[in-house]
Amino acid sequence: MRIALLNPNTTEAMTDAMATVARAVLPPDVGVAPFTAPRGPEAIEGYEEQAVAAATVCEMMRLHPGFDAYLIACFGDPGLYPARELTRAPVVGIGQAAYHAACVLGRRFAVLTTLARGIGTIEDRLIAYGLLDRCAAIRPTGVPVLGHGSGGEGLSRLCHEACRAVEENGADTIVLACGSMAGEAEAVAEAAAVPVVDGMVVGALQAYSLARAGLWTSKRGAFALPEAVGYRNMPVAYHGT
Amino acid sequence: MRIALLNPNTTEAMTDAMATVARAVLPPDVGVAPFTAPRGPEAIEGYEEQAVAAATVCEMMRLHPGFDAYLIACFGDPGLYPARELTRAPVVGIGQAAYHAACVLGRRFAVLTTLARGIGTIEDRLIAYGLLDRCAAIRPTGVPVLGHGSGGEGLSRLCHEACRAVEENGADTIVLACGSMAGEAEAVAEAAAVPVVDGMVVGALQAYSLARAGLWTSKRGAFALPEAVGYRNMPVAYHGT
Amino acid sequence: MRIALLNPNTTEAMTDAMATVARAVLPPDVGVAPFTAPRGPEAIEGYEEQAVAAATVCEMMRLHPGFDAYLIACFGDPGLYPARELTRAPVVGIGQAAYHAACVLGRRFAVLTTLARGIGTIEDRLIAYGLLDRCAAIRPTGVPVLGHGSGGEGLSRLCHEACRAVEENGADTIVLACGSMAGEAEAVAEAAAVPVVDGMVVGALQAYSLARAGLWTSKRGAFALPEAVGYRNMPVAYHGT
Amino acid sequence: MRIALLNPNTTEAMTDAMATVARAVLPPDVGVAPFTAPRGPEAIEGYEEQAVAAATVCEMMRLHPGFDAYLIACFGDPGLYPARELTRAPVVGIGQAAYHAACVLGRRFAVLTTLARGIGTIEDRLIAYGLLDRCAAIRPTGVPVLGHGSGGEGLSRLCHEACRAVEENGADTIVLACGSMAGEAEAVAEAAAVPVVDGMVVGALQAYSLARAGLWTSKRGAFALPEAVGYRNMPVAYHGT
Amino acid sequence: MRIALLNPNTTEAMTDAMATVARAVLPPDVGVAPFTAPRGPEAIEGYEEQAVAAATVCEMMRLHPGFDAYLIACFGDPGLYPARELTRAPVVGIGQAAYHAACVLGRRFAVLTTLARGIGTIEDRLIAYGLLDRCAAIRPTGVPVLGHGSGGEGLSRLCHEACRAVEENGADTIVLACGSMAGEAEAVAEAAAVPVVDGMVVGALQAYSLARAGLWTSKRGAFALPEAVGYRNMPVAYHGT
Amino acid sequence: MRIALLNPNTTEAMTDAMATVARAVLPPDVGVAPFTAPRGPEAIEGYEEQAVAAATVCEMMRLHPGFDAYLIACFGDPGLYPARELTRAPVVGIGQAAYHAACVLGRRFAVLTTLARGIGTIEDRLIAYGLLDRCAAIRPTGVPVLGHGSGGEGLSRLCHEACRAVEENGADTIVLACGSMAGEAEAVAEAAAVPVVDGMVVGALQAYSLARAGLWTSKRGAFALPEAVGYRNMPVAYHGT
Repeated sequence: MRIALLNPNTTEAMTDAMATVARAVLPPDVGVAPFTAPRGPEAIEGYEEQAVAAATVCEMMRLHPGFDAYLIACFGDPGLYPARELTRAPVVGIGQAAYHAACVLGRRFAVLTTLARGIGTIEDRLIAYGLLDRCAAIRPTGVPVLGHGSGGEGLSRLCHEACRAVEENGADTIVLACGSMAGEAEAVAEAAAVPVVDGMVVGALQAYSLARAGLWTSKRGAFALPEAVGYRNMPVAYHGT
Repeated sequence: MRIALLNPNTTEAMTDAMATVARAVLPPDVGVAPFTAPRGPEAIEGYEEQAVAAATVCEMMRLHPGFDAYLIACFGDPGLYPARELTRAPVVGIGQAAYHAACVLGRRFAVLTTLARGIGTIEDRLIAYGLLDRCAAIRPTGVPVLGHGSGGEGLSRLCHEACRAVEENGADTIVLACGSMAGEAEAVAEAAAVPVVDGMVVGALQAYSLARAGLWTSKRGAFALPEAVGYRNMPVAYHGT
Repeated sequence: MRIALLNPNTTEAMTDAMATVARAVLPPDVGVAPFTAPRGPEAIEGYEEQAVAAATVCEMMRLHPGFDAYLIACFGDPGLYPARELTRAPVVGIGQAAYHAACVLGRRFAVLTTLARGIGTIEDRLIAYGLLDRCAAIRPTGVPVLGHGSGGEGLSRLCHEACRAVEENGADTIVLACGSMAGEAEAVAEAAAVPVVDGMVVGALQAYSLARAGLWTSKRGAFALPEAVGYRNMPVAYHGT
Repeated sequence: MRIALLNPNTTEAMTDAMATVARAVLPPDVGVAPFTAPRGPEAIEGYEEQAVAAATVCEMMRLHPGFDAYLIACFGDPGLYPARELTRAPVVGIGQAAYHAACVLGRRFAVLTTLARGIGTIEDRLIAYGLLDRCAAIRPTGVPVLGHGSGGEGLSRLCHEACRAVEENGADTIVLACGSMAGEAEAVAEAAAVPVVDGMVVGALQAYSLARAGLWTSKRGAFALPEAVGYRNMPVAYHGT
Repeated sequence: MRIALLNPNTTEAMTDAMATVARAVLPPDVGVAPFTAPRGPEAIEGYEEQAVAAATVCEMMRLHPGFDAYLIACFGDPGLYPARELTRAPVVGIGQAAYHAACVLGRRFAVLTTLARGIGTIEDRLIAYGLLDRCAAIRPTGVPVLGHGSGGEGLSRLCHEACRAVEENGADTIVLACGSMAGEAEAVAEAAAVPVVDGMVVGALQAYSLARAGLWTSKRGAFALPEAVGYRNMPVAYHGT
Repeated sequence: MRIALLNPNTTEAMTDAMATVARAVLPPDVGVAPFTAPRGPEAIEGYEEQAVAAATVCEMMRLHPGFDAYLIACFGDPGLYPARELTRAPVVGIGQAAYHAACVLGRRFAVLTTLARGIGTIEDRLIAYGLLDRCAAIRPTGVPVLGHGSGGEGLSRLCHEACRAVEENGADTIVLACGSMAGEAEAVAEAAAVPVVDGMVVGALQAYSLARAGLWTSKRGAFALPEAVGYRNMPVAYHGT
């Protein structure tokens, strides 16, 4: 089985780090092919970066067909629905996968994100997935994407917000809403004494599981293959369309 | 007052037609500046075209700053939220404007769209706007975007579905979910004997109204101006970021 | 175009003030005909005043037929649905219009009202319009209707609650839920640094817009013209029914 | 214990019939004091009649203070919330009481009403009470209020729609949404083989129960006693306010 | 009329106390037959005790057929839906009955429970009944079931949480979510100055009312009599099945 | 890794068949320990069987501690929440797992069940999981549990209902809501040309994934270990409690 890991931002170091996490958790016979976005933002904080990244995910789907499953490795799941249009293989988003895992481990989860501006995009996704009522709180650390992942202030803010989510909001599970926080899940779990979900880990396993089960993305209705629509002034992946 | 009309697809003829509609309904002292997407799909049917168009709307917002209001002239409202991030002026989507109008004219509206695949994207928007419960039905005509707008089979299917929405689903108002159907609103209203909302008309008036009221897009929270994020391999509008 | 402005309470000074606001924002060729409720409460704080005012709005609709649009100028939108039954012209409520505007300007609005007792009636309307989830908070100032509109304590409480709604509830837009607060929108916007919606302004523009678009209230279903029902002991507007 | 039965319409024969039903089901030591609306519509089909009746219910509450419980005897529950403002005694609506009973007897109820126009008002109430999801369907008979209650076509249409609600909509319980249908509950239950709720019966018992339990309408928040607001040109019940 | 009162836990003293409450509030000609669970937990705090109690309620329904109504006397309503399968008589849960009463007495109720772990089960029920939006807060006292009912610390915590629910959460009505709190309703009402609902009282009256009205549990759909399924290793009530 | 597979009914042949399915899909180093319910129904169709099975699942959790993950192998997920109380290991229900998978493969799924009576229990679960809006329809075949699994009428009805769900209800994915249907997923997928989810397969993989990720059931809040409550007349697993 070969899984394509699509990093929707243009920072290769993040692609490499996420591929390492995915490989570590998947069975040895599963291949992980990591791809970095060929264009777009270096990090994704708000709506514009999400929108540009979503379009780039479409381009990446066209550039890299034929995998057994696709994993979109950004917590906001940019391009998740269009990617599902573009293949018959299962397409997993690490955000949706994390929420599903949290719904099994506890009854009400909190989401920890970076900046306050991200609360809206997370709420958008929870509403779209039907899971807003399961969410006790979305709490920002006030530290941007690139300030997380190397301990220090970022980690200490994460632990602080995790504890407040448990004490004040009644959360029993924590979801880390940023790939850069991934390596810090254990420290947060220890601080808050609740399970902490890293979307990269459960996303890789969900992609594996659906492919292993022989399941596929429906080609009826919303995710049917795209119509034959002409495109203009697009990257090479769209030439000929 | 100057309103920028952004056509998210690359078909200039549609831009021109929509600008004509907007100008006809706005007060004479309001200027309408129409812009066609510099890249992307010629028509928008499904998720991929929406995603590419949303990114192009961001590019257009960067290319054309300084207007008093922005109108995104595609029923799926691609790029609506990111566009709101990128300006302090009000940003109106013709889809959201149409739903708001329908909520005033009746109690339960039906949405008529082109292909069955579009039901999902329309539901997505209604859920995001909180208005799904006001929607009695979403009915596709089975005729693609370019098959509407010139009477014939497209119009006859529209009238047929409008009548069924009223009789079978209890709709009392119709929303036409495709710019190409705009010129046919009157014929459909006559056939179904209910008000029929053309998003282009009410969208232009909503953009005008918000600017006239001196209102502006909030720069707190979800629509705060974007963070300083680096971009790679992007069109010239992003150079220097 | 002639728009009837219906003030559901019996205080003529408020009618005059609201007509001035409406005229100031509408194009010069739009006529505004203001009408004060012929009977009922001098101000509307709770359910009883709303109910009496709703009945009076019906009476006013019967007394003043033939306008191109109707604007119900009380934030609780009393009599909005029955008024829609009674005419083919569009009928706009300043409350619903304010919520629609707020949904375009930001992602989560707060509503500022007068007394705590009004929270329930505002929630009732938001639930009816399907927009409760867009509302971050409803905050009372503790100052009654007539204590607002002339600066002083009323204004200072408004600014205080607006700031708390932004800081504590994550609101990015403010809706002023009382006609008497209208003149204070700018001061509140400056204090809280977010857009502040005055329902009178956006309501007048929404009424104008729908009439300008040639749209009408559906006469199918919920808003069909009333049945031929006999009435007893009613004001003269009902004689003959 | 003395229960005031308020008929919001002006047809005394209906007041008498409903009082008979209430007395038949209540314990012998419970007094029922029936009151007919002093003004307003003879029957309630749509929004305007509801609005006028709601105001009259307020007037009746002022005219008849001091009862141990109040029962508003019209299925649309006109004036229910304002009446709760006006007394410390429990105030029961036969509509809400019927829905509560249906939620105990089955899992999904259908509501049978008279004209299609009434679907909207019933949906409004179900949304306000939070019970819309428990409702499998709202089906009109197409026969107006006064065409029900004496067998014949009205009854035969009722039985027909009840059976369709069970077969086609999966309803397991029927709610009759019109006082005039009350005497036909048994015949409908026999035809459809499911329990049929008559709001008058369960409403009288709910009013009795709450008073018997020593419970009272909260005077905090939404149902606090009205503010001291002046009224003009009102019936005598408002003189002095 | 004979009502079976089923105590789902195995503490006979609680059965006796609850029967006393029921008898005190019901008309003198209504018989109350109290039954204590033949097996299971002595008190019900969390999901496991609920699950075991629900199965025991099924057993009790098989052991005690033929009553005119059944009352499940535990606030979590364990076994409510299966019990409805097992009889044609109305089956009332004291939790659902309390929520229904609270929806009549005020606009937003708070639920006071024992331990924080119980918040989840209460939310589950409110979601199932469709009434979560009517709930302003669920507040635990931190005192277990057996620590309530005899004044002292339990009562003082109850009063404290009731007042906070009113002041901080905007509740206007209180629901006591534990049978052991029943005798303390009056003291809490006095402390918080809002109506306080004791489920045992209103549950007994709801069971009486539905039986008095001649209503029955639907045998179509979800609550149809069970299929003929074989059972193994079960108590004697299941022998022969 | 060792996963306990708990069959909540007492039919050993079903336990064996489900263990075979789980072993076939899991990596070779994962042990599956199947357990059949020590008491209770031979098949689970309605609420009573669910309730009895839920209590038995609690007993099984006490009898079989120490596994790395637990899989409750009945589509109605009986005992899922109490089981989560009773262990720190992840506890997966095949129903919830199937819904999660369906939410990734398509946009709107249909659930196929056996008898009409089961619609209610499935709706209950979807409401509890927050996923009812993702469900296009729940369609019964009219064939009981034991009539499925060996082709013939059961399979032909399944295929028929699957096709209708796609054509009439707009479903793009099918969930088979009965363990006995498992072997027929492929035939149904071929007939309806959409992905068909077998809960046993995806449930086993979800249990594996969560354990592989090192995740655990939260012991804060709703799923905290049970309180020290005494039990009477219980099977040996409860002795000493």
